[in-house]
Amino acid sequence: MVNQFVSMLGCCFGAGSNRISANPIGLKGHFLAVNQSSASRRSCGGKVYVVGAGPGPVELLTLKAAELLRDAEVIVYDRLIQQSVLSLASPSAERVYIGKPAGRHHSRQEEVNEVLVRKAREGKQVVRLKGGDPFVLGRGGEEAAYLAERGVPFEVIPGVSSAIAAPLHAGIPLTHRDVASCVVIATGHEAHRDEDRLDWAALSKLDTLVFLMGVHNLGRIASRLIEHGRDPATPAALIQMAYWPDERVLVATLANIAEEAKRAQLQPPATLVIGEVVKWRERLRIKETSQG
Amino acid sequence: MVNQFVSMLGCCFGAGSNRISANPIGLKGHFLAVNQSSASRRSCGGKVYVVGAGPGPVELLTLKAAELLRDAEVIVYDRLIQQSVLSLASPSAERVYIGKPAGRHHSRQEEVNEVLVRKAREGKQVVRLKGGDPFVLGRGGEEAAYLAERGVPFEVIPGVSSAIAAPLHAGIPLTHRDVASCVVIATGHEAHRDEDRLDWAALSKLDTLVFLMGVHNLGRIASRLIEHGRDPATPAALIQMAYWPDERVLVATLANIAEEAKRAQLQPPATLVIGEVVKWRERLRIKETSQG
Repeated sequence: MVNQFVSMLGCCFGAGSNRISANPIGLKGHFLAVNQSSASRRSCGGKVYVVGAGPGPVELLTLKAAELLRDAEVIVYDRLIQQSVLSLASPSAERVYIGKPAGRHHSRQEEVNEVLVRKAREGKQVVRLKGGDPFVLGRGGEEAAYLAERGVPFEVIPGVSSAIAAPLHAGIPLTHRDVASCVVIATGHEAHRDEDRLDWAALSKLDTLVFLMGVHNLGRIASRLIEHGRDPATPAALIQMAYWPDERVLVATLANIAEEAKRAQLQPPATLVIGEVVKWRERLRIKETSQG
Repeated sequence: MVNQFVSMLGCCFGAGSNRISANPIGLKGHFLAVNQSSASRRSCGGKVYVVGAGPGPVELLTLKAAELLRDAEVIVYDRLIQQSVLSLASPSAERVYIGKPAGRHHSRQEEVNEVLVRKAREGKQVVRLKGGDPFVLGRGGEEAAYLAERGVPFEVIPGVSSAIAAPLHAGIPLTHRDVASCVVIATGHEAHRDEDRLDWAALSKLDTLVFLMGVHNLGRIASRLIEHGRDPATPAALIQMAYWPDERVLVATLANIAEEAKRAQLQPPATLVIGEVVKWRERLRIKETSQG
């Protein structure tokens, strides 16, 4: 039944709906294989689709992702993919689970790269499912480059980014005309290093900050921002497992979010949002009126 | 036929797939109406769904957005919504087009707010379709707050953000372990003002910058960043109408992107990307091998 609906998706992808025009200015030639029609896709050999799976629930997959999952012969996925998403795939599809326990990132990434190339060279249609969007802190760029260097046809399908959707689900818009003209999405993973790539002085001055993978470094993230002049009273929110059954939202200030998160035993994965926009959560509560 | 596939979507949204758990830490009570099941949604009165439509093509809608469009009695939409997306809706649905010509933003926004409230109070299921994601530079937060203040039930559905998907479609990952640990998404709309909300000194120091609505201010954006120390040789790309038939991509440097864009007559809407990640576009080209 589930696959039945996906099998009808083809009909609504009109010709040219994602056509890219000839590109007279930029790079020339064959690029990213974004133009291939379904027909040419099926007629050629193996191919890898690096697909954003969104923040979790199947209903936040794109129609394109659902169609590709239905057709996939191999699915390579990480921890943060819900069972309802995987169940869109054919029962006969090979499922390759590659979790990424902390500290083993590098070797796992090589494993992923190798399995993608191997399966594509076997002539398979491979879907590489990644939580959120593949090109935002997801190493999708690295995987795509690895494939490109080896001549493996691939296509990258964007997804709903968890960095945006997690705050949204908690009622926090990331920008607002009056309080936030920009948002920074950063990894919180590096904050424990003495020398990381993040410019904390610059970050401390921008309106809205979203950190992914920051739960273990909450204290350091907050103290570096405060050291560089961010007001300790700045509102901050931590959203654990947005859109999953165990979603929890903690609202605090930059000064005490680390302590509060520890007390509440919030666990990764969680999304940290810092900035005045966090206050909008209150304003997005529906007032109790006759219409409410 | 098109609506037939959407009519089957209901079956794949398992109970609890987007359930939010009781929230013992954060705000209590009724919030954003995210928990309502389809059944309760239909049994109550009017409601507004503020829905992200993604960057353009129907295949980049979420399954949830497609389902809501099918059920909508009223659809309120802006300029950047493709016909193939609107065609998912019932022929009997009322379509309210609210374009936003430059300079008339404010009055149009009031018009949108008022029509959403009026239609919901008539008991209608209203879909407010917004290009990209509603909570990233899309004023979705303002519309949601307007509804909340008036006691109108609403729900916000995230979408694929154009700020992320446009660079992706041009082959540019926004982050990379070695060259970019963060990305800033900012409006380019304010750069013409003498006093804007953007801290150009801070922006000039961060890895990847994405500006939406910046075509008319390209020269000012580039010169402010360079004045604050950004290397004029920093790679920059401008993606016009990503995922639409007239998509074009210009690759240049921060120093000459404004001039090149003028020469190539690039038009809004376009997405500006600045940073070393732009170079990855070359690396994501598939090498010509026996597999290619």
